[in-house]
Amino acid sequence: MTDQVTIRNLTLGEGIPKICIPVMGKDSREVLASARAALEHGPDILELRADFLEHPSDAEQVCALLAEFRAAAGDVPVLFTFRTKGEGGERELPLQTYEELLAAVCASGTADAVDVELFLGERTAEKLIREAHAHGVRVILSSHDFEKTPPAQEITGRLRKMQELGADVAKIAVMPRCEEDVLTLLSATLESRRELRVPIITMSMGALGMVSRLLGETFGSALTFGMAGRASAPGQIPARELRKLLQEIHHYSCGSGR
Amino acid sequence: MTDQVTIRNLTLGEGIPKICIPVMGKDSREVLASARAALEHGPDILELRADFLEHPSDAEQVCALLAEFRAAAGDVPVLFTFRTKGEGGERELPLQTYEELLAAVCASGTADAVDVELFLGERTAEKLIREAHAHGVRVILSSHDFEKTPPAQEITGRLRKMQELGADVAKIAVMPRCEEDVLTLLSATLESRRELRVPIITMSMGALGMVSRLLGETFGSALTFGMAGRASAPGQIPARELRKLLQEIHHYSCGSGR
Repeated sequence: MTDQVTIRNLTLGEGIPKICIPVMGKDSREVLASARAALEHGPDILELRADFLEHPSDAEQVCALLAEFRAAAGDVPVLFTFRTKGEGGERELPLQTYEELLAAVCASGTADAVDVELFLGERTAEKLIREAHAHGVRVILSSHDFEKTPPAQEITGRLRKMQELGADVAKIAVMPRCEEDVLTLLSATLESRRELRVPIITMSMGALGMVSRLLGETFGSALTFGMAGRASAPGQIPARELRKLLQEIHHYSCGSGR
Repeated sequence: MTDQVTIRNLTLGEGIPKICIPVMGKDSREVLASARAALEHGPDILELRADFLEHPSDAEQVCALLAEFRAAAGDVPVLFTFRTKGEGGERELPLQTYEELLAAVCASGTADAVDVELFLGERTAEKLIREAHAHGVRVILSSHDFEKTPPAQEITGRLRKMQELGADVAKIAVMPRCEEDVLTLLSATLESRRELRVPIITMSMGALGMVSRLLGETFGSALTFGMAGRASAPGQIPARELRKLLQEIHHYSCGSGR
């Protein structure tokens, strides 16, 4: 059975999947304009994608921007993400710089949650989870495959590993090459939801996998990413439409007594 | 690869799943009122559920009613279905009466397609398919399980059997007891779509299986049932909402190049 996890005023692991809108921009001005546009879509959580910044390695500057972002977000929880190039992001950082940036963000009190990539290694994950938890910040451990959909046991294995490492939330995004891959992701999601304690976030990317973004309530993904303006990953749909679709699906499947 | 099948002006086996609205009533007056209400929802095909009639075994009376139904439907194709109690319908008919009723309907020229239940036996299926095809009427062979979801190979096996018997369209509706059952139905649908020539119609019933009614374009079900007024099977949702959901899903997944 999945525990519920709270991130500020957001509860993950119950009911209709929550919607995260990623916010991208190269500097404070762009980021804040995007954040304001995103907030008009009523997100449940806002994600700052720091890998889109011009100067993401200057931790002090990033934390100053994040403080403005935090103020603009009001009560909406803030997720800080630096997505490395290897996992589909905009750029690379030396591991030490990545760790220092994340640690500074945790210490700054400006983010409610941070994303940490599983493939940066267990040492990094455990260190940053300790750092985050010491400051009351939640950690989403994440894994991405933009090339393919690994076998179901690989997907469930990665999510299990994330829980073992101490993640508050475990996330995996994979690319389907055929319809069978979409079912593999859904099946692995359901199995992990039955097995794990932490809420999970899963998606099959691209147009082919788009339906996976709508099926979280049935198969067990607690959160889905919707866009306001531009997508941060293939297959994202406008947050407002996403919300309507999720609500309709909830409405017509709420008689199932789950 | 699936062939396309035309029923009057309706093509099954391509694009957005088509919507069938079942029409129920105990007599001509009720049936025609329900048909008019259903037509306001813009169905792709109308199904007359003859097992709801007060006097379904009077073939002459049924054909007269069906002629009025046909006239009311205008260009919308008409599917004639007598659903037996054993498959979730309202009543039973002696097999010979069932066969005579279906044969009379086929000969009357008032239906574009008829539903024939697989479990009435191969002899009945083959006889009625000959009869239907002799009059240019399409046949949907159908199978229903309101208790459970059989294993995937049982589902694909029944659909394959329907094609072998000469069905124009193969349909199966099953009841899920857990989320895994919904994935089993979707997986069997995809496998059958890859293997069979005839278009297939599948659904996982009830609130739990509702999402299967939205996923036909991705996983291969050519038609889905939506309601106007009351549902003829558990999990059906209003046809108008269903259409909007199917169109939105099509819109956001149409980039997949399938």
